[in-house]
Amino acid sequence: MDQIAPTNAPRPGFASWLGETNSVTAMFLAAGRIQGMINLGGGLPDPAVYPVPELADMAKSVVENHPHDCLNYSPIDGLPDLRDLIAERYSDEHLHLTRENVIILSGGMQGLDLVGKVLVDNGGIIAAQSPTYLGALDAWKPRHPVLRPFDAGAEGFDAVSAFQGAQFAYTVPNFSNPSGRLVDLPTREKLVDAAHETGTWLVEDDPYGGLQFDGEPVRRMISLSGAKQEKSTYRGPVVYMGTISKAIAPGFRVGWCIADPEIVKVMTTAKQSADLSASGIGQRIAIEAISTGLLDRLQPQIVTLYRERRDALLAALEEHLSEWFTWEKPVGGMFIWVEARDPSLDTFKLLPAALDAGICYAPGLPFDPAGENRGAMRLNFTFNTPERLAEGISRLAAAMKRRQEWDR
Amino acid sequence: MDQIAPTNAPRPGFASWLGETNSVTAMFLAAGRIQGMINLGGGLPDPAVYPVPELADMAKSVVENHPHDCLNYSPIDGLPDLRDLIAERYSDEHLHLTRENVIILSGGMQGLDLVGKVLVDNGGIIAAQSPTYLGALDAWKPRHPVLRPFDAGAEGFDAVSAFQGAQFAYTVPNFSNPSGRLVDLPTREKLVDAAHETGTWLVEDDPYGGLQFDGEPVRRMISLSGAKQEKSTYRGPVVYMGTISKAIAPGFRVGWCIADPEIVKVMTTAKQSADLSASGIGQRIAIEAISTGLLDRLQPQIVTLYRERRDALLAALEEHLSEWFTWEKPVGGMFIWVEARDPSLDTFKLLPAALDAGICYAPGLPFDPAGENRGAMRLNFTFNTPERLAEGISRLAAAMKRRQEWDR
Repeated sequence: MDQIAPTNAPRPGFASWLGETNSVTAMFLAAGRIQGMINLGGGLPDPAVYPVPELADMAKSVVENHPHDCLNYSPIDGLPDLRDLIAERYSDEHLHLTRENVIILSGGMQGLDLVGKVLVDNGGIIAAQSPTYLGALDAWKPRHPVLRPFDAGAEGFDAVSAFQGAQFAYTVPNFSNPSGRLVDLPTREKLVDAAHETGTWLVEDDPYGGLQFDGEPVRRMISLSGAKQEKSTYRGPVVYMGTISKAIAPGFRVGWCIADPEIVKVMTTAKQSADLSASGIGQRIAIEAISTGLLDRLQPQIVTLYRERRDALLAALEEHLSEWFTWEKPVGGMFIWVEARDPSLDTFKLLPAALDAGICYAPGLPFDPAGENRGAMRLNFTFNTPERLAEGISRLAAAMKRRQEWDR
Repeated sequence: MDQIAPTNAPRPGFASWLGETNSVTAMFLAAGRIQGMINLGGGLPDPAVYPVPELADMAKSVVENHPHDCLNYSPIDGLPDLRDLIAERYSDEHLHLTRENVIILSGGMQGLDLVGKVLVDNGGIIAAQSPTYLGALDAWKPRHPVLRPFDAGAEGFDAVSAFQGAQFAYTVPNFSNPSGRLVDLPTREKLVDAAHETGTWLVEDDPYGGLQFDGEPVRRMISLSGAKQEKSTYRGPVVYMGTISKAIAPGFRVGWCIADPEIVKVMTTAKQSADLSASGIGQRIAIEAISTGLLDRLQPQIVTLYRERRDALLAALEEHLSEWFTWEKPVGGMFIWVEARDPSLDTFKLLPAALDAGICYAPGLPFDPAGENRGAMRLNFTFNTPERLAEGISRLAAAMKRRQEWDR
């Protein structure tokens, strides 16, 4: 065989959208490996909340008792028992769900990927709440969509204009990633009305819904939409996404999408060629965790723990950073969105100094569909203890002080 | 709230590629639910081969002993221990692999989806071995690629012309789905040479490699490609895909891709927005199954079982169908590819009669990238016992006889 050095061969290429991705994830991953770094940049649960012994026993018993469900390919749209459980759990007086309304996913992130595949044509318009989840933007990049940002909370916000002509609208109404903001009921009604009026799919991405620390839950948009039709299987424009990742553990990779049966069908077509089916053992563990009440027993413990941590982060911000930044107190979720008072501050440029000081955060720019917001950062409070959160913010203050010295 | 009937609202639409999918999967699913149906249409392992007690114990012990790996998000590219194991397992005297060459996937199917995302631009050319795997064609449809079929086994096949200008070339060299054919060593060398010469990525999809019934394994193309460079980390054009689905069980959803570290990096970017990471518990079970030798102990049992079934299906074909069809004896895999002697026979049109007779098969048309081959069908022999296989083929003969009566 003749020896052809690969360097002499023409270089095979990659798809063009890969040139458009940002390096922020690589920066996080590198930061995660540095000894002593306090990482507020990610969005991870605290592994201390995972009920390890119960999950270990469940893992064994589901394989023994349901070997076919656990070990075979699942139906593409998920195990019927889990679809039934989810339909039952989310049905209410206005929203009538059956198995046909539910597709089981390999985690919530997959829902965003599949929505991009089934709803967007190349170059199509996506209306997106701003700021919005980084991962959602990345999932849709291969389709080269046009992102049209909207601020549902703004005075005089016109949802119909925002949605008109879009292939779908994207929102995280509960403690939005990254802003931590809760979308109130009147705004939800406005969004749902606009979706019905303009015939636009409205994606209600809800990974954090269970993590509410203060006040009462606001009705889901899919329930508001359900109230607009006769008492029968839901057939409206809201596409709801949920997950067990924040409530039990992300390692099983189980999430779900609840929607019009037609959406479920086309997402099933797309899922078939994405990964054939979700993990069988993961789905069976989800069934056990929901039906035995483990999930509902864990929720209050997690909420208490994360509420303390949110408060610890707020106190540290107040003590060390109020000179330079402002923020709102989030009533749930995993993040505080912090904005610079000085319009010239660029959190991307600040990051190397912060990393030097031993603190990592998520710069705000990649969360802006318009690519303009340079002065914000997202801080996670679920992964670290109150002590580590306080230490991290004092390090960030040190980095800010050093920046001021350079500026002089 | 005013009541807007959803039927009065404008109908939200779907992405255009969804109009191009075929209904064959829906037909299979429906057939699977019919009592007494003998299904040779799928591609499933026999669940009787799954080592249920061992896997149940493993499921418990991995959660107990590696709770973080099992329950957290994994690194996007997979657990380092599993990447190391795969690198070690596939390295040989010509192929030098490290962790950097390996990305862990949520099953082999995901590799096809990600390859489509990272290598193909909208409307790009994919050179594909014909006939080819249905699922691969579907995975790439959202990119609207131009498929250029090639027959590597044909007299005077010119691989350089076949690959020139394509964004990648796709092959299943071991017991190709659907044809069951083994690509011989000289043809593999020709394909690998052409990939190096033209600078085309060459996807070597190998889910069935472990299921060889007769003769010696033929060297992998990635190993042939490795021999063309210095003894260092592999940096060539072959992109190899493997899975535990056929050797242990598909329900864990674990596969892998072995390639140039640059491909691993861009696939990691694409996987991040596809599903964040593969199942943690699935990956830990894969590590256990490989490192304890369970996988290697199971393989010979599975090969023996499936060889008997292939032989049973061949005998039944010989007895009942040789009047109307021809076929080759596959030396491995899960399928026999059967072609009609009568060029006017359309296996899609025959299917309803076959289903009536209680037998389901996969028509050949959807496996043809050119969309022309109407006279073939794919028969699976792994899922059913020899008795059921014989009964199924006798039912198919009955359907053929009825067809002849209609024709008179």
